[in-house]
Amino acid sequence: MPEPQPTAFASRPSLARRGADPKQERSARTRLRVLVGAAELFTERGFRQTSVKDVADRVEMTKGAVYFHYPTKEALAVAIVEEHYARWPKLLGDVTDERLGPMDTVARMLERAAEAFQDDVIVQAGARLQIERPHIDAELPTPYVDWIALLESLLTSALEAGELRPDVTPDKAARALVSAFFGSQHVSDVLSRRADVVSRWQELGTLLFRAIRAE
Amino acid sequence: MPEPQPTAFASRPSLARRGADPKQERSARTRLRVLVGAAELFTERGFRQTSVKDVADRVEMTKGAVYFHYPTKEALAVAIVEEHYARWPKLLGDVTDERLGPMDTVARMLERAAEAFQDDVIVQAGARLQIERPHIDAELPTPYVDWIALLESLLTSALEAGELRPDVTPDKAARALVSAFFGSQHVSDVLSRRADVVSRWQELGTLLFRAIRAE
Repeated sequence: MPEPQPTAFASRPSLARRGADPKQERSARTRLRVLVGAAELFTERGFRQTSVKDVADRVEMTKGAVYFHYPTKEALAVAIVEEHYARWPKLLGDVTDERLGPMDTVARMLERAAEAFQDDVIVQAGARLQIERPHIDAELPTPYVDWIALLESLLTSALEAGELRPDVTPDKAARALVSAFFGSQHVSDVLSRRADVVSRWQELGTLLFRAIRAE
Repeated sequence: MPEPQPTAFASRPSLARRGADPKQERSARTRLRVLVGAAELFTERGFRQTSVKDVADRVEMTKGAVYFHYPTKEALAVAIVEEHYARWPKLLGDVTDERLGPMDTVARMLERAAEAFQDDVIVQAGARLQIERPHIDAELPTPYVDWIALLESLLTSALEAGELRPDVTPDKAARALVSAFFGSQHVSDVLSRRADVVSRWQELGTLLFRAIRAE
């Protein structure tokens, strides 16, 4: 299969990949600790109901120490959303390494993403912050468009490989998958705090793949 | 087909159905005017970014007159969400009158709901307020569960009528449809302010019905 277009997910910095200098590493670890504490609180309570003081208490640091790394609560939100998006190029790399066909790559990407929405607090907090974006006074990346572009690229490969039903077009199928995936994890969030994202997505994804994949 | 279970949509009061007394009618019209003005603002800006003063200005009334009908901004939000939910039993009645088979009833309900999400500001505002529910200090009904119950009931009739694929179960298909519908209208909201809910749902719904309906 053709390589997925590298432009589909804009490359974004990930904390995990920062410098090797011991002092820098310690600083990166502290930043990550703050970020995870903030992500837990944003996921549990939302952006507005969380203060920087709450974050400091959660990670057992002073407010000043938190402010040293993130000057505002908005900066914390932006960093979490960026970290959320940094997950996907990494996931794409992992799944590409499995050398599946294009349709199986799409299915695997979404399956792994469902696992991340169920288990990874950075991913959960990023999704909640995106939902709350009208309440956050900061520029956040436009959601959904990178995922739609990535899946459209993979589904175009699937079309070329004869893996799509003849009446399915990559752009429409990509939008359908992303919309359905988003809805699935959101309804799971509201009704069961994302405890069942994986099984809920499996139910919905199975139906969609049946309708998209060539028989 | 069996009648849809009347419990699926809890009966909720609708302003349109209030008393026949001229004074009561005038009061109901005024309440509706306030509600539509508030719904426009909540849809455009969200709950937090809208004040009761903004609502009063929008409908060209005094703040006192708005407060006379709705004592708090939260009361406005609750009334809009109730009015949103009052749409669905009415829609179910209309669609039931078309006397379609159960699967076609499901499809028609969702098609008509997509039209409402695209064109009806009360429906749009209700959906946005449900998304913003963690920011609203009032009890709102749990979203999704009534729709899931209604579709499960209709899909059970479809199963009995032999209209479902043998491996499809009504509960899973109902959750899948509701999750996908919600995702579709939400992604449309974020990317194009709901201008294309109907066509986006048509794309996604077509795929799902292909996977659910017996061949």
